[in-house]
Amino acid sequence: MNLAEERQKYQPQLPKALQNLASFSFEKGEATSSLKDPKKLKELFKHTFGQPYLKSGTKHPVDKCALKIGVVFSGGQASGGHNVIIGLFDALTKLDPQSELIGFLGGPSGIIDCKTKILKKEELDSFRNQGGFDLIGSGRTKIETDEQFENALETAKKLQLDGLVIIGGDDSNTNAALLAEHFIEKGCQTKVIGVPKTIDGDLKSDLIETSFGFDTATKTYSEMIGNIERDALSAKKYYHFIKLMGRSASHIALECALQTHPNCALIGEEKQTLETITTELTDLIIKRAEMKKNYGVILIPEGLIEFIPEMKTLIQELNALLAHKESMTPDEATKTLKDEAQKTFTYLPQKIQEQLLLGRDPHGNVSVSQINTEELLLIKVKEELKKRDFQGKFFAVTHFFGYEGRAGFPSNFDATYCYALGHVATLLIAAGFTGYMSCLRHLKESPDKWEVLGIPITSLMNYETRKGKEVPVIKKALVDLDSKSFQSFKNHRDSWKFEDDYCSPGPVQFAGDPEITDQPTLTLILD
Amino acid sequence: MNLAEERQKYQPQLPKALQNLASFSFEKGEATSSLKDPKKLKELFKHTFGQPYLKSGTKHPVDKCALKIGVVFSGGQASGGHNVIIGLFDALTKLDPQSELIGFLGGPSGIIDCKTKILKKEELDSFRNQGGFDLIGSGRTKIETDEQFENALETAKKLQLDGLVIIGGDDSNTNAALLAEHFIEKGCQTKVIGVPKTIDGDLKSDLIETSFGFDTATKTYSEMIGNIERDALSAKKYYHFIKLMGRSASHIALECALQTHPNCALIGEEKQTLETITTELTDLIIKRAEMKKNYGVILIPEGLIEFIPEMKTLIQELNALLAHKESMTPDEATKTLKDEAQKTFTYLPQKIQEQLLLGRDPHGNVSVSQINTEELLLIKVKEELKKRDFQGKFFAVTHFFGYEGRAGFPSNFDATYCYALGHVATLLIAAGFTGYMSCLRHLKESPDKWEVLGIPITSLMNYETRKGKEVPVIKKALVDLDSKSFQSFKNHRDSWKFEDDYCSPGPVQFAGDPEITDQPTLTLILD
Repeated sequence: MNLAEERQKYQPQLPKALQNLASFSFEKGEATSSLKDPKKLKELFKHTFGQPYLKSGTKHPVDKCALKIGVVFSGGQASGGHNVIIGLFDALTKLDPQSELIGFLGGPSGIIDCKTKILKKEELDSFRNQGGFDLIGSGRTKIETDEQFENALETAKKLQLDGLVIIGGDDSNTNAALLAEHFIEKGCQTKVIGVPKTIDGDLKSDLIETSFGFDTATKTYSEMIGNIERDALSAKKYYHFIKLMGRSASHIALECALQTHPNCALIGEEKQTLETITTELTDLIIKRAEMKKNYGVILIPEGLIEFIPEMKTLIQELNALLAHKESMTPDEATKTLKDEAQKTFTYLPQKIQEQLLLGRDPHGNVSVSQINTEELLLIKVKEELKKRDFQGKFFAVTHFFGYEGRAGFPSNFDATYCYALGHVATLLIAAGFTGYMSCLRHLKESPDKWEVLGIPITSLMNYETRKGKEVPVIKKALVDLDSKSFQSFKNHRDSWKFEDDYCSPGPVQFAGDPEITDQPTLTLILD
Repeated sequence: MNLAEERQKYQPQLPKALQNLASFSFEKGEATSSLKDPKKLKELFKHTFGQPYLKSGTKHPVDKCALKIGVVFSGGQASGGHNVIIGLFDALTKLDPQSELIGFLGGPSGIIDCKTKILKKEELDSFRNQGGFDLIGSGRTKIETDEQFENALETAKKLQLDGLVIIGGDDSNTNAALLAEHFIEKGCQTKVIGVPKTIDGDLKSDLIETSFGFDTATKTYSEMIGNIERDALSAKKYYHFIKLMGRSASHIALECALQTHPNCALIGEEKQTLETITTELTDLIIKRAEMKKNYGVILIPEGLIEFIPEMKTLIQELNALLAHKESMTPDEATKTLKDEAQKTFTYLPQKIQEQLLLGRDPHGNVSVSQINTEELLLIKVKEELKKRDFQGKFFAVTHFFGYEGRAGFPSNFDATYCYALGHVATLLIAAGFTGYMSCLRHLKESPDKWEVLGIPITSLMNYETRKGKEVPVIKKALVDLDSKSFQSFKNHRDSWKFEDDYCSPGPVQFAGDPEITDQPTLTLILD
């Protein structure tokens, strides 16, 4: 027996409302609007704007008839994805054993090209509570062009789908809303339901308490961070600059900080300047050196760089310059840039200047994700230490934790959450709803107390400028500096700087004391 | 309740022989020699050379009197270190509650400078089954000079130690042997006992089946590798070049390969040339691309570079050149180097040429550990793909796993092994032996069946050239290419190249099915 086989046998507990599907019914709540721009959105989403919230009720049990549903993974991995599919399947077959579940292969391009695979119980059983998205794969293609929308429609019609479940992040759920609207517009019966997936944790709202995968990812990173803290405390020799995945928001860094109590965790949403961050880190290192502590652990969110106000300005100006030039040397850039941007650019180490000028994304812009933020900070800190004539010891090691946390065995929380999300998605389709996101709340309670919800996707939307165009999108949830989780971090971080209150949560446990195995994230508990 | 608290309560099972210390006795086996150079070693180790193996017997129970023992950690962290100390303590107090355990702070320099801490039950209890070495810290200072030997002697006398337990790797255990001999020579009663510690797994012999820490480290790395494999298989987008800690031997890479079945795991001991490795990896990438598999996982042992025959020659020649020059540019080096070394140097990417010429170790030599082997291979592979006009997709991500695996919660195996090793060390001292290493064997059986051994450290020694001097050392155990573990890997690796037989062992589990929680490493089971 190995862990993979052991996990196949784990049976996630279902919320009370989902324990007997025969009597499950939805009850409509109040009608919704949108976050902003309701007028514009209402024009675009003629049929689906303003739909009511849904919760489980008692009056009209959903139809128990055979359904044919398609499912797709969109974007990066998040632990628990397979359980969403298995939740869909189990709910479908409980409603009617003749139901059929079809997987689209390799992400949304599988819908466009109608690349499918029929999902059967035997194969699915081997994926119960397993990590990864490899059952059907995933991809980053988006359904954007008119042609792609038509292809998707053709696929839905050809397969005679009753429903399509899109498991993805904010953009993919925006896509789900557009597709739902498009299908109605074109007289197609296929209902489109989104499921909130992303390790980044930035797809949430008052009602969507967390996206799946965030729990496992942050626990996996926290295991590693805790181990490194204990190593640092034992060796007393190195500073560890640890960059954590999470492209925009700093939710991962915040949760990991609450779990592990590092000496410093930078939170992008605080929008500190590069100089402030450098000064803060240098102060920390010098003061710790005075305490004979020549070691420490610093957490850096991947998306930090885009929150640094002067970097944002610099990047914008560089994009404008690079639009007219094939290439540019750091010297040329220094001469051409003006004022603030010039000052920022010259403040950067040469290596980072080169990274800024070399990499371009597919749109010809500066490729921000290529910039090694952890290295940038390390170089700046070294410069600053030299400037201040620091005579102590400073050795640093950099790390990047990302891929390690996206495809591991889902924690009990993610396994249970995803299995229930799959059930809710099936029920939404069975009850004839479209343009909704599958949702559960009160997640810090035990699963039997979780409340089933359906959230109209348009209620989470507003208009934003993307690639120079005004487009309808789900607003990304950034770290709220007024939230209890951030405030708790803020209240502790000064003492963590110097006290070494390191905390090792250890590897994710699946058996034993439920206080250890079933604990949700601290962000979820606090907020 | 969190995992740290939960683990404090874990009670490691003791081998049968250690369950009742009142009746424990050692029985002498045959006298030992050394691996090589017995004559020279016998001259150096006048008093301790040729001592017999010890195993548990029935005739002369060890004295049950109060003892005063000092303990020190030497070198890098390995999970389970705290349990060795707790094992020492529990055994000491079982023999006589008046016994005293003293920790030397910050590694061997704590012995030289007599920096100590008395270890008491209450504090020790909070370290039961916890990772790290932070109870007393560790360090890399070696007791080498005459003065340092005298200081160590003074400390032993001043504290009136009955015994000194050195928890360390091959070099530290060599040191333990020298100290044992020195103490006898100087009429000091302190017995010196070594405990085999290193995550690298290169401190082993016919009788020493494994060093502690190897189990937890390889399981932690395998968790991450398995997660990354599952991610690669889901995203189908990236090659992951994963470097694994382990300075000389490739035991870690071999064990992780057996656990996770990557597409390729390089084993330094096979001594392939850089060109062969590059060709092999490029062939793999091209053939997988033909199978539409533009992803994969490659394991690279940290010590690989020193096994590559032509790199070894190049490094030697560069060391000779750099001895006479302050600095050298890649161009100068190319001109100055001759024949084979010149050819090797020009085959290297410029970045690596610069790394070779820039870094120097404390002895003025090329700093081999500064060379990014994973990056070197990646650059070579990219060059080769270009040369072969490869038109497919190749994106790669590099990783280095090291610090993450040295200080985590010890696996049940390491926790149990270390606790027993501590007991054996105490008993060796109580029975009056010195210059021995604490040992247990039959480790793939359940702990109650483990056999207690005492191994004369000199039996593991030979003379080797270190820094130009012939010195007595414990021979590092490299991966044996005839071993069952390597043969098993060899039999499978061709199919792993293309079949994606990835295996996710998942996070280390502490509770639940013992087949999952108590499994030793595959290397141990196979060999």
